[in-house]
Amino acid sequence: MKNIAILGSTGSIGVQTLDVIRLHKNTLKVVGLAAGEKLDLLERQVREFEPAVVSCSTQVIAATLEQRLSDLIQRPHIGYGIDGAQLVATWGSCDLVVGGLPGSVGLRPTFAAVDAGKDVALATKEVLVMAGDLFMHAVASKGVRLLPVDSEQSAIFQCIQGNKSEGIRRIILTASGGPFRDTPMQEMHSISVEQALDHPRWKMGPKVTIDSATLMNKGLEVIEARWLFEVPVSRIEVLLHPESIVHSMVEFDDGAIMAQLGAPDMRIPISYALAYPDRIASGSAAVDFPRLGRLTFHEPDTNKFPLLAAAYDILRDPDPSSSIVFNAADEVAVDLFLRKRIPFGEISNIVLDAMQRVPGASIRSLDDVEAFHQEVVRIVKAQHEA
Amino acid sequence: MKNIAILGSTGSIGVQTLDVIRLHKNTLKVVGLAAGEKLDLLERQVREFEPAVVSCSTQVIAATLEQRLSDLIQRPHIGYGIDGAQLVATWGSCDLVVGGLPGSVGLRPTFAAVDAGKDVALATKEVLVMAGDLFMHAVASKGVRLLPVDSEQSAIFQCIQGNKSEGIRRIILTASGGPFRDTPMQEMHSISVEQALDHPRWKMGPKVTIDSATLMNKGLEVIEARWLFEVPVSRIEVLLHPESIVHSMVEFDDGAIMAQLGAPDMRIPISYALAYPDRIASGSAAVDFPRLGRLTFHEPDTNKFPLLAAAYDILRDPDPSSSIVFNAADEVAVDLFLRKRIPFGEISNIVLDAMQRVPGASIRSLDDVEAFHQEVVRIVKAQHEA
Repeated sequence: MKNIAILGSTGSIGVQTLDVIRLHKNTLKVVGLAAGEKLDLLERQVREFEPAVVSCSTQVIAATLEQRLSDLIQRPHIGYGIDGAQLVATWGSCDLVVGGLPGSVGLRPTFAAVDAGKDVALATKEVLVMAGDLFMHAVASKGVRLLPVDSEQSAIFQCIQGNKSEGIRRIILTASGGPFRDTPMQEMHSISVEQALDHPRWKMGPKVTIDSATLMNKGLEVIEARWLFEVPVSRIEVLLHPESIVHSMVEFDDGAIMAQLGAPDMRIPISYALAYPDRIASGSAAVDFPRLGRLTFHEPDTNKFPLLAAAYDILRDPDPSSSIVFNAADEVAVDLFLRKRIPFGEISNIVLDAMQRVPGASIRSLDDVEAFHQEVVRIVKAQHEA
Repeated sequence: MKNIAILGSTGSIGVQTLDVIRLHKNTLKVVGLAAGEKLDLLERQVREFEPAVVSCSTQVIAATLEQRLSDLIQRPHIGYGIDGAQLVATWGSCDLVVGGLPGSVGLRPTFAAVDAGKDVALATKEVLVMAGDLFMHAVASKGVRLLPVDSEQSAIFQCIQGNKSEGIRRIILTASGGPFRDTPMQEMHSISVEQALDHPRWKMGPKVTIDSATLMNKGLEVIEARWLFEVPVSRIEVLLHPESIVHSMVEFDDGAIMAQLGAPDMRIPISYALAYPDRIASGSAAVDFPRLGRLTFHEPDTNKFPLLAAAYDILRDPDPSSSIVFNAADEVAVDLFLRKRIPFGEISNIVLDAMQRVPGASIRSLDDVEAFHQEVVRIVKAQHEA
């Protein structure tokens, strides 16, 4: 029996993780759930999976949950806020923490899980983007297992199984290209929120969906891959692949390319992270290649998607705080766009402008990371929320 | 230093094996070369790679070679015929035998290599097709490593690295479809030898090239895969993929599909077999996906290519001698076609007819295999060389 805690249990990754665990109740046990404000869903999850510890965003929601669960004989311990999420992440009997909290809020609980010696199935991009160096050091020094949950990073991880990472010639990160792959450059500026939230392949949270539309998401994945697989940025390529069947590839020194394919279904990478090094049923449908007919590949247009090119600049910049600026400015810009305060085209302008103008900072600890993130958010907000 | 003997050194696999070894003279050493009648090429190979033992087809050729090499200070031991090939395959200092002799002549030396405790990099299809059960038992009982060299089998082998074979849901063997993939059914019968030898993707020997044109080759690979990977035939699919970039795929229980891609270049699977579990430079060019643009997939037409369907019938037949009939009848039929004695369309008719008419035999040993093969060859020849 593997004991699992889920950070972000009511989000897209959390719900799909529970879908997979539901198929394997004899081998996988939920011991902790940390969520935000979706109280109804969290209550149902607690009743179904009977965790020992639960956390939600605020004290008020925690009290309501406590009351709603008063009929249970085995009531879970209920916490709230960052402390509550950390309690879930470090719960004694937990073996593996699924880190699926969206945004910078996922940072501290994920670090806490590693510090407590838990294996981590990582979906929160911000952990590696904001604090890649610190996090990989923590993972190494604690000797825990880090399993990527992102479909692209999981694909790369699957491709290198049985191979030596020194032999990697290049990592080919595939990208669907988002909903605006074929949109003319001049129409990009005025894309609406509704258009941008309608991703053709993957159903995800709003922040990730907008980041997919700008290819910022792929930029963040380039940064993640650099940390996860310890390859120089010159060996990471992005390849547009609209069908989202090839989830990424790795080319080795002999010219062989290993690829992981499958339906665009997050339950595949989730189930792999849960069962690694085994494989378990995920509930995913099989790919019908004759019916599919073809898989297509194109070079990404970095003029149309400048945030992808910017990610490469970030990795070439020796200052580690630059990726915090990159990430924080995007967080603010996407939020402004979702609240219809700026047009779509302004997202990349805000990020590129912040990269130019916000001075760097010395980063030695997680406190430094969080403080600098908050500072960048404040600066960028001040500039654009007039 | 890994010591390597090559059976079939002047054939397509042998020459490309030496191309790879030439790139790695500090780690790979040729200790033995067995060839047929290409004396000039064999002489050059001996002078370049300085093996300890050499074999060619006949006593006369061996004597000529001995004379030609009389200027060498370190002259190799020179044998001939099956005994000579066996001597090469079992040479004391040899670690790995590359089994690249074409046809049933490769059978005995490859078995001899395994009996002598050598690891085998196997390219000769006939070993597993004619004697799969016996060979896999020999490999298991001697505890030697069996490394497939065929590009499809190597791809499957690469895909299952780091995975458990129990978790294989299906093996997807890709096939270029040969030169007549799009030829109308009614034109198939009268295809010429020249047309059939002009394979669009791979440069190979004449027997394999004709077998590729009839998809017999893919049928033989289905049989090979059943033995190599111990999966029931119901889990092996053939998928037409004209670009020959995806060399095969394996789908696992979680829905993930691992694929090995690369240029259609035998030096990739050869280098993998030589260096396994490491990877070494093969000299192969990289794949340029944006330039390639697309990869296409179709279901094979088993009406047009009946020998592919016949391979499945063979594997469903509990009589192990049926695959010997299948293989031997094709050997005769392809030879008749190459000598322009029968039209292209007759190849499959001869094989299907032999499957119906030639009675099975009890197979308990390699002698039984060879005797029955000879008998089937004799029967089929007698029927068609009137």
